[in-house]
Amino acid sequence: MTDGNFAVAQSGGPTAAINASLCGVIKKAFSENRKIFGMINGVKGAIDGNFADLNGIFKDEKALALLRNTPAAYLGSCRYRLPDFDGKSELYEQIFDNFRKKNITMVIYIGGNDSMDTVLRLSDYAAKNGKNVLFAGVPKTIDNDLMGTDHTPGFGSAAKFVATAVAEIARDCAVYADRSATLVEIMGRNAGWLTASAALARSETSDAPHLIYLPEKLLSKEKLINDIKNCSARNIVIAVSEGIKNENGIYYSNLDCNAGHDKFGHAQLCGSAKVLESIIKEAFGIKTRSVELNVLQRCGSHFASLTDLTEAEMIGAFGAEALLSGKTGIMAGFERVKEYEVKPIINDVKAVANLEKTVPDSFIAENGCDVTEKAIAYLRPLILGEPKIETENGIPKHIALN
Amino acid sequence: MTDGNFAVAQSGGPTAAINASLCGVIKKAFSENRKIFGMINGVKGAIDGNFADLNGIFKDEKALALLRNTPAAYLGSCRYRLPDFDGKSELYEQIFDNFRKKNITMVIYIGGNDSMDTVLRLSDYAAKNGKNVLFAGVPKTIDNDLMGTDHTPGFGSAAKFVATAVAEIARDCAVYADRSATLVEIMGRNAGWLTASAALARSETSDAPHLIYLPEKLLSKEKLINDIKNCSARNIVIAVSEGIKNENGIYYSNLDCNAGHDKFGHAQLCGSAKVLESIIKEAFGIKTRSVELNVLQRCGSHFASLTDLTEAEMIGAFGAEALLSGKTGIMAGFERVKEYEVKPIINDVKAVANLEKTVPDSFIAENGCDVTEKAIAYLRPLILGEPKIETENGIPKHIALN
Repeated sequence: MTDGNFAVAQSGGPTAAINASLCGVIKKAFSENRKIFGMINGVKGAIDGNFADLNGIFKDEKALALLRNTPAAYLGSCRYRLPDFDGKSELYEQIFDNFRKKNITMVIYIGGNDSMDTVLRLSDYAAKNGKNVLFAGVPKTIDNDLMGTDHTPGFGSAAKFVATAVAEIARDCAVYADRSATLVEIMGRNAGWLTASAALARSETSDAPHLIYLPEKLLSKEKLINDIKNCSARNIVIAVSEGIKNENGIYYSNLDCNAGHDKFGHAQLCGSAKVLESIIKEAFGIKTRSVELNVLQRCGSHFASLTDLTEAEMIGAFGAEALLSGKTGIMAGFERVKEYEVKPIINDVKAVANLEKTVPDSFIAENGCDVTEKAIAYLRPLILGEPKIETENGIPKHIALN
Repeated sequence: MTDGNFAVAQSGGPTAAINASLCGVIKKAFSENRKIFGMINGVKGAIDGNFADLNGIFKDEKALALLRNTPAAYLGSCRYRLPDFDGKSELYEQIFDNFRKKNITMVIYIGGNDSMDTVLRLSDYAAKNGKNVLFAGVPKTIDNDLMGTDHTPGFGSAAKFVATAVAEIARDCAVYADRSATLVEIMGRNAGWLTASAALARSETSDAPHLIYLPEKLLSKEKLINDIKNCSARNIVIAVSEGIKNENGIYYSNLDCNAGHDKFGHAQLCGSAKVLESIIKEAFGIKTRSVELNVLQRCGSHFASLTDLTEAEMIGAFGAEALLSGKTGIMAGFERVKEYEVKPIINDVKAVANLEKTVPDSFIAENGCDVTEKAIAYLRPLILGEPKIETENGIPKHIALN
């Protein structure tokens, strides 16, 4: 078993589950009586020697329970990308010096695509320069666009927020007797996983969203207008990706807000839904509205997916265990077995870093404005269950690093 | 005790609690063994004779429990305003004919300002033309801007959503080490009650929002810039009303999105936060973002205020009871007694219809960018508690009229 202490970092955009993974790592370190240091603001913490003493902070079980339900990254994040190295590098040496001072031999990096690049570079550097430190990546991203895993922690909670919000917005739209269109703009610039999750809003009593547009398919103005013409719903709800492009491959969010006429504005101020809103208004003259779900998709933890939080914690612990057993340069992942269960797996981080997994064709309906049953069967288990949320003064209680 | 049957209508914008009031009315009617008809799409249902048989639909207790937690208006809404009448009116006669056919003698109208105008007109017409029908208004609006009541049903749930969302967004903002500003745009064009509720996001571990701008006070570009200069927070969170105006009394949402320069755009496409965002970007060059909470404020019922739902149901039943005891031309309201309890009261609808209650000066901090302790003491009890939410396939279960 590997000797020495742990360090753990969080990186990339916030999610509702990234602290649950941190929780899993901490619990594993505690169960092995190891010291564990939190790197403040991702790899920057290792560069600056800025570490939090997690053994001290999380002595109290209650603090760990709060951490699990606190959204965003407790340790802070960064978007910093390590530079290439050739032989020896002063920056990399500084990082490993800071690890050595704390006897850190195992480093867990919880993050998305860019973070796996960091794991790759650090484990490469360690191997080539005889550094005695092991590195493992634990995936997280609401975008679900990482290779090497059935799905990513953080995605399930975001998908549950999207589905719940669309279901509620559909009720809101349905109260008036006049025909209307409501666009809901959903995150995921290149990968439509979250937009596809809007389909989970459908129930016995609601068939909204009626149209779903993923960024994997181009959407012409003509198709949009035609799809609305063919839609029999009185109050049409449309789920659309922030990254939807027109038939020429141009982002709608780069087009002029005023009816999407093909000229570039002086600044990108409107989201894709605002531009589509103006197209629909011009074509149909009906009441049209757009709702950008915005950052609540990734930080709204008050109605998180219990499945997601449980898996996020489990894969954090699994990553720590992989380091204890001597693995390095890996990313933990999920394999889906049976209907529904996940098994943690180990990937070579080289095979997954810097790649992007988009929604496959088999998940997109042939009409180009919906998802398939196969997509729904894949997505639904990920949003099941709700955690018990501790509240104080009527709002969820969180924990923060001082 | 008044003989005959009940009719009930919902009107105005959706809230998370308007169906809880409907629930209270239905239960009261059931307990008195009365028939109760739902007017479809507000007063339009009475004009068209379009009624739902609520005794049939809600025989099952479970259906009532679902109704209580379903957002928006189960019976549909309208924005129709009854015309003036002078002596006899064909339209009014048609309405009373439709009531007579169903032996409806007691009508509850659940709604906001415009709805109280409807109650006033119908009860006036009945009195002047010898119609044997009584009318009571039950308040609802997320805006909390009705006179004659300590607060309005629907407001507490919206305020809880705002406070929770701002608390979560503040976590999201805090993960990066660079200075940033995040604007959260909140509903309430003339009354800042909901924007003020953002202050409830503060806790032991977060002092966000750092700046709060209510529509009751004008906000110059210079003041905004100065307030930000004086703000010591690294990641500034700003709660701002959709109806904020500049020093000349012009809505920011009517100004050009591009740095709020004083010229009118050809279309109103940006909200106030987008315009303020561009002003901050230009003045400070820091990462600035705006989040429009949009309709989720009023329809997000998955984390509603239990206090709000309980009171909404109670005041629905109270309105029905007032009709049974022979009252008419009234609006039910809350009086706050002790710390914290509410007592239902009866208002003459004449005294409350068509008025608007804005946030008093004593609730607004002298610096013009915060609320007072007095405001927080008023607001906090309204967001306490969470209902148990029934879910199906990972999303809240709702009920809908077929």
